[in-house]
Amino acid sequence: MNQALTPEAHSGCGAEKGLISVDEALQMIMDQTQSLGAETILLNQALHRYLAAPIHSAINLPLFSQSAVDGYAICANQEILPNTAFELIGEIRAGQPVELELKEGQALRIFTGAKIPAGTTTVARQEIIQLHPQHIVVVKNLALHSDIRDIGEEVSQGQLLASTGQQLSVGAIASLSMAGVKHVTVFRYPKIAVVITGDEVAETVDDLSSGKIFDANAPLIQAWFQSHRHSVDIFHVEDTHLAVTALFNQLKDQYDAVISTGGVSVGDYDFVRPAALKLGFQQIFWKVKQKPGKPMLFALFQREDQTRCILIGLPGNPAAVYMGMQIYVSTILAALQGQKKHLRWGSGAMQHDLKPDARERFLRMNAVFENGRLQLSSLDKQQSHMLSNLMHANCIVRVPAGEPIHAGQVLPALFIQN
Amino acid sequence: MNQALTPEAHSGCGAEKGLISVDEALQMIMDQTQSLGAETILLNQALHRYLAAPIHSAINLPLFSQSAVDGYAICANQEILPNTAFELIGEIRAGQPVELELKEGQALRIFTGAKIPAGTTTVARQEIIQLHPQHIVVVKNLALHSDIRDIGEEVSQGQLLASTGQQLSVGAIASLSMAGVKHVTVFRYPKIAVVITGDEVAETVDDLSSGKIFDANAPLIQAWFQSHRHSVDIFHVEDTHLAVTALFNQLKDQYDAVISTGGVSVGDYDFVRPAALKLGFQQIFWKVKQKPGKPMLFALFQREDQTRCILIGLPGNPAAVYMGMQIYVSTILAALQGQKKHLRWGSGAMQHDLKPDARERFLRMNAVFENGRLQLSSLDKQQSHMLSNLMHANCIVRVPAGEPIHAGQVLPALFIQN
Repeated sequence: MNQALTPEAHSGCGAEKGLISVDEALQMIMDQTQSLGAETILLNQALHRYLAAPIHSAINLPLFSQSAVDGYAICANQEILPNTAFELIGEIRAGQPVELELKEGQALRIFTGAKIPAGTTTVARQEIIQLHPQHIVVVKNLALHSDIRDIGEEVSQGQLLASTGQQLSVGAIASLSMAGVKHVTVFRYPKIAVVITGDEVAETVDDLSSGKIFDANAPLIQAWFQSHRHSVDIFHVEDTHLAVTALFNQLKDQYDAVISTGGVSVGDYDFVRPAALKLGFQQIFWKVKQKPGKPMLFALFQREDQTRCILIGLPGNPAAVYMGMQIYVSTILAALQGQKKHLRWGSGAMQHDLKPDARERFLRMNAVFENGRLQLSSLDKQQSHMLSNLMHANCIVRVPAGEPIHAGQVLPALFIQN
Repeated sequence: MNQALTPEAHSGCGAEKGLISVDEALQMIMDQTQSLGAETILLNQALHRYLAAPIHSAINLPLFSQSAVDGYAICANQEILPNTAFELIGEIRAGQPVELELKEGQALRIFTGAKIPAGTTTVARQEIIQLHPQHIVVVKNLALHSDIRDIGEEVSQGQLLASTGQQLSVGAIASLSMAGVKHVTVFRYPKIAVVITGDEVAETVDDLSSGKIFDANAPLIQAWFQSHRHSVDIFHVEDTHLAVTALFNQLKDQYDAVISTGGVSVGDYDFVRPAALKLGFQQIFWKVKQKPGKPMLFALFQREDQTRCILIGLPGNPAAVYMGMQIYVSTILAALQGQKKHLRWGSGAMQHDLKPDARERFLRMNAVFENGRLQLSSLDKQQSHMLSNLMHANCIVRVPAGEPIHAGQVLPALFIQN
């Protein structure tokens, strides 16, 4: 597998032939990634999970006709004129059962959200009444059916609340809670292994003198998964064919997806692809016409039980790992959970020219809104071994290959949310 | 404290006098919220925390001059012309120490990221050489200093990497890792209690028949904190002055902030404000000219050691709780951690008219980018007891008070990120 000592091996490395586009790569990922099985979990554990089944409301919302204000439920068969008196017969708080029925000319103290008693024709908010010991006087005109929230006016029983594939946001959790949902059926969260290849990682400052560097990739991937509130198992492996093959052989049976960094080009110590192919992974694509991250492998291992292990081999440069996580791993994780429209690209206008590049680029930029328009400014130090501009970047911009970009041109931009 | 049985008490409830604006409320929060103390933690535990001290780089990045490609380090005192041969004297991998020095006419196999040996004047990428057993031939023109990453070209030793108040994103964690940072000094994360007031919460479907409702507020707040990867202690308290006072009395000594829901208006069962005032909390503001969430209390309890407990009393309507968390609690948590410019409002153009309202509104909307412009469409069912449109909303829009809004008008919009 050591290909470097022949002139032929060198020739393939920098050539652009055989590369696929970013869109093709993303489409292949979505086409080839099967969603995992479903499981039913408590709603309060389901934040950011993807529904594997639609949810229909078991109840009406509001559950019952109720007062929209603190005030008085009134029975009056027509619009109330100013200074009309009503007999005060009691009080109902939210959450209390109510048995009585109002009769014409009667009123009942009531609070926001409390079920209105039978016979209620309207509710007077407390600001428009005068209170006396045994009666109230409504001091302003009051139409029938004022300040009543009707049963089912927000959601009717049986109505679709959420669809398969929906990711559960904070607001979705709250909304489903209000409808009495306690459990949800979601796609299983993938079991993920991360493989960091390479011998050049320094542990201490003393190591630096020998040409090692501090590792950004493991902390980057760990933090990325922390931001997704998901654990991963991280493995470090030395740059030998034997070690990489042995590790992949073990992981392919135990994980839904393996993310590797480094060792995926055609260098003398790039063993990710040969190891995967030797173990029976099927290559879906290898190189993408993008910068950073051209040598990127996407491969599948089909197990005997027809389940799969996905391998995404990212290059070792940290900027390629960063974009790989934000663009590709993000897409894979969503697709494994039934959601194939995951990335939501916005768009903004470039504030300056950009030189052309033969490959599509993911550039780290700063985006600001100006009167409803998004304005994009590229940051310095975009090279694939550099990360420091991520301190200031708030979006990733797709810059198409080939043509120079002129100020004012609109490009797709993805806000960085983590 | 039961004020409802006098006519006077009713008169204050709906009046708009004494209300402050949203901007005034946010400014008061930022003015009155003191940042907590600092602590030093492992970088790999610091995702989304706020720096309490600036970070300067202890090293250069790159740490040493290195090859940008897989190829050959060469010593040649001038630009190399096509078909020039160099003696091949060995190989260096990334992370390996290098002792030797190249002399004129010599070349060394080298890999991306490996330290270039002394004497290197340029690097030839492997695609432009022919390899022979003892020598290489460079087949194309090659300028001096090609494909060399210079020491310190990204970051120089001592340079400011991150400033006080910066929140640590995934990219920031990775970038600091690359600079060898292992520990960071961050503001302590606040200890938070959540108090859910009210007796109307149903536990089971059987409870519903008695006028109770399913609770959205506790699940909403719990999910919100899950999305911030932070735990909270949640307390439920019945609607009595005694119970609320006893609980607040205990919490004021133990927590940096208390978030309550419900019981904060002037109704007969609204005990949050009287209980807090009785215990010695200082009211900073009580009512905000906004919808939802007009009755909102912000108060401070100063302890003997000069530390404070902050109380934010949100109304009980779930939409008011949702906006309270996204706008106000979010601002408070950031301010407690030294960051007073937390909310980043974008802007977008309304796609339709909106009727005027006497109060500023936070509306749940759907925003789409169209050729670099953000376009905002309001969703149905915006009332404060309704949450179901959060299934479809992707932003919160601030609609100013007073005037009608016309299609095309640009309004501030905050993307929902959780």
